[in-house]
Amino acid sequence: MPDASPPNFETLQYAVEDGIATLTLNRPDRLNAFTPQMMHELIAAFDATDADDAVRAVIVTGAGRAFCAGADLAAGGSTFDFEKRYGATPANTAHRDGGGRVSLRIFRSLKPVISAVNGAAVGVGVTMQLPMDIRLASTEAKFGFVFARRGITPEAASSWFLSRVVGISTALEWCYTGRVFSAQEALERGLVRSLHAPEDLLPAARALAREIADNAAPVSVAISRQLIWRMAGASHPMEAHKLDSRAIQSRGRSADVKEGVDAFLEKRQAAFPERVSHDMPDFFDWTGEPPFA
Amino acid sequence: MPDASPPNFETLQYAVEDGIATLTLNRPDRLNAFTPQMMHELIAAFDATDADDAVRAVIVTGAGRAFCAGADLAAGGSTFDFEKRYGATPANTAHRDGGGRVSLRIFRSLKPVISAVNGAAVGVGVTMQLPMDIRLASTEAKFGFVFARRGITPEAASSWFLSRVVGISTALEWCYTGRVFSAQEALERGLVRSLHAPEDLLPAARALAREIADNAAPVSVAISRQLIWRMAGASHPMEAHKLDSRAIQSRGRSADVKEGVDAFLEKRQAAFPERVSHDMPDFFDWTGEPPFA
Amino acid sequence: MPDASPPNFETLQYAVEDGIATLTLNRPDRLNAFTPQMMHELIAAFDATDADDAVRAVIVTGAGRAFCAGADLAAGGSTFDFEKRYGATPANTAHRDGGGRVSLRIFRSLKPVISAVNGAAVGVGVTMQLPMDIRLASTEAKFGFVFARRGITPEAASSWFLSRVVGISTALEWCYTGRVFSAQEALERGLVRSLHAPEDLLPAARALAREIADNAAPVSVAISRQLIWRMAGASHPMEAHKLDSRAIQSRGRSADVKEGVDAFLEKRQAAFPERVSHDMPDFFDWTGEPPFA
Repeated sequence: MPDASPPNFETLQYAVEDGIATLTLNRPDRLNAFTPQMMHELIAAFDATDADDAVRAVIVTGAGRAFCAGADLAAGGSTFDFEKRYGATPANTAHRDGGGRVSLRIFRSLKPVISAVNGAAVGVGVTMQLPMDIRLASTEAKFGFVFARRGITPEAASSWFLSRVVGISTALEWCYTGRVFSAQEALERGLVRSLHAPEDLLPAARALAREIADNAAPVSVAISRQLIWRMAGASHPMEAHKLDSRAIQSRGRSADVKEGVDAFLEKRQAAFPERVSHDMPDFFDWTGEPPFA
Repeated sequence: MPDASPPNFETLQYAVEDGIATLTLNRPDRLNAFTPQMMHELIAAFDATDADDAVRAVIVTGAGRAFCAGADLAAGGSTFDFEKRYGATPANTAHRDGGGRVSLRIFRSLKPVISAVNGAAVGVGVTMQLPMDIRLASTEAKFGFVFARRGITPEAASSWFLSRVVGISTALEWCYTGRVFSAQEALERGLVRSLHAPEDLLPAARALAREIADNAAPVSVAISRQLIWRMAGASHPMEAHKLDSRAIQSRGRSADVKEGVDAFLEKRQAAFPERVSHDMPDFFDWTGEPPFA
Repeated sequence: MPDASPPNFETLQYAVEDGIATLTLNRPDRLNAFTPQMMHELIAAFDATDADDAVRAVIVTGAGRAFCAGADLAAGGSTFDFEKRYGATPANTAHRDGGGRVSLRIFRSLKPVISAVNGAAVGVGVTMQLPMDIRLASTEAKFGFVFARRGITPEAASSWFLSRVVGISTALEWCYTGRVFSAQEALERGLVRSLHAPEDLLPAARALAREIADNAAPVSVAISRQLIWRMAGASHPMEAHKLDSRAIQSRGRSADVKEGVDAFLEKRQAAFPERVSHDMPDFFDWTGEPPFA
């Protein structure tokens, strides 16, 4: 349900302008280090962008000189000892990794997600970006899957995402060495789509978001996003054929397609009437996910 | 069953010469726009190439200046409203997307399929190419996954294929923006293998088909095609080990391997005796597929 | 169980120095052609590297001018006719491809595996490298998926691995044509990570192994390897979230993470205490695999 007032967060700035939501990680004095509060606020932010029909695309960036320096290490060597810090997990409730809760929420997003990597993106600061659709980076950005150098392991479901973004050999090399690498290496290995001078980064991200918002039907974009992400793990193209046959049948009698084809034949911009909040077809649970347990 | 006379189609030219079948989409006055008749004829054409042992590889191209401009929009905004155009689907028979029927037929092909993209390939004109094995393009070609600009969604099982060909980020970007892009972008993002001057395109496709036809055992090629496509969606390499252990065992006592190894040791061209029509091993249903329903 | 004396093989040299095991295929007079004995010794070698905590990474290379010229064809056209050569397989025991047995053993490795391709790598000589994590090649190396030219089919579970390393179109093209191709083509298509002058190849492989051994926690590396390879075939990122939540929970209270975070905060090299032989968390069967039958 769209709401006139944007949600108010402490660790994030949330702004919607001209169809584009910008989420800015906002703990610049801590290099935007990830905390449990940031986890909850990121999840709530994607709930908000999905619910607001005025949002046609989402940009994620960082305040100050970093994108996100990873988990906040203020608790030192106990940082990842959740039982010690937060008490024993109830016996019937397994611990769920916080980065993974964010990744899976982004995976279910109905809006396109573009990350604009303004600076260091390390640990969960880079793994949270893998379920985002497209990554643009400043030439000053740097990246690191540093988990093995800290004695832990890749998280945020990145073992599923990373090889699908950069191929399995690069995924393994980055996770084995844990090295911090340059924006140039990120570009060459396919982690980011393009590099930009720092002052050109947000304009480039907005131009790409603009291209989507100005031209594409919102319901078509939401369905496309879910079809493509979900079929990335499907065993046979028949699974896609089953889903897209229904999607085409449903969209084929929509008000959107009449407008889209008419506009094309009349060589004018289309004005699509349908909205994600009300017009997603009901033959599939677009926002569902398998159980954790 | 091979037949002396080639099949006769209205929307396609079908020609076999020197081991290579060339299928030419042939509605040049409509930029080879896709119709239900073309769907049926494409499926029949791949039935014919599979059945004819004289065909060692298949090239698909377009007549005139386009490859295929997508669905024929002569019916305007009702183009994709199948119920309105063709009557209600029987209650127990879900609609099957026509592009997907073609894609799944190509997926099951026993012969290598090379597309030679001579011009615009838009909508189903590009999604039908994704289950083809290798794409070569003219420098004049252009491409577009324009579905979201028409108010519909990617079809032809492309949500399964596209991320496997170009990676998930590019798949999402092209489907979100719906933009028409150049042959150069298609090359850089991995959609096409190589670019050629327009007059060099078909010769390049034929040279590649020739390299296969002149050197490879037909049954080996057919099994290789099915193993590689099917294992693209398999969860564990054990699935490949089970299948290729049987394939090696079966091929290892064939007349083909005796000829292949002898020819190699004698440094001469091999003349493989076995044929796809009769000699495919029976331990697997090479042309089967999961049910649609 | 680590053993003071290294295993003694006939077809392999096995050496461990400064944390790096080097396996050298060692039948140089036969271009290191693959035999059943080499299969058994390779499997035993990876059992040894996994069992020896002193091994932090494994390099595989070839003695003499080839890496591995493929199956030894001394038996000519009967090479792949296992029943003829070795007697009938018991009715209830299907033949298991030897290359696949090696590939699946490498897939289960707990140590990173780097191949240093010093020369020709053809047939099983290249397919055995696909489950290795990272491939470096000499500028003099060449490669060939020559199966269809011999009348057989791709083996060693390569139909699963190859498309995940180089994409499906290149996988198909190389297997259809069976052509022998240059190190440069292998680099451009993503089969190898980097090319090196012949005398620089092993030093480059060792430098990469060094970067891992000097910086990464061994248990973290072993878990990372299994997570990334296994999730390459998983249908949904929830599968990764389930596993990495437990991995983070387990590693988060380990002695390694305390050392890793402290060392990072103190800007010194970490000295991780935990070892693969004793400290792998028990919530998952890291070395298990699905049954063959």
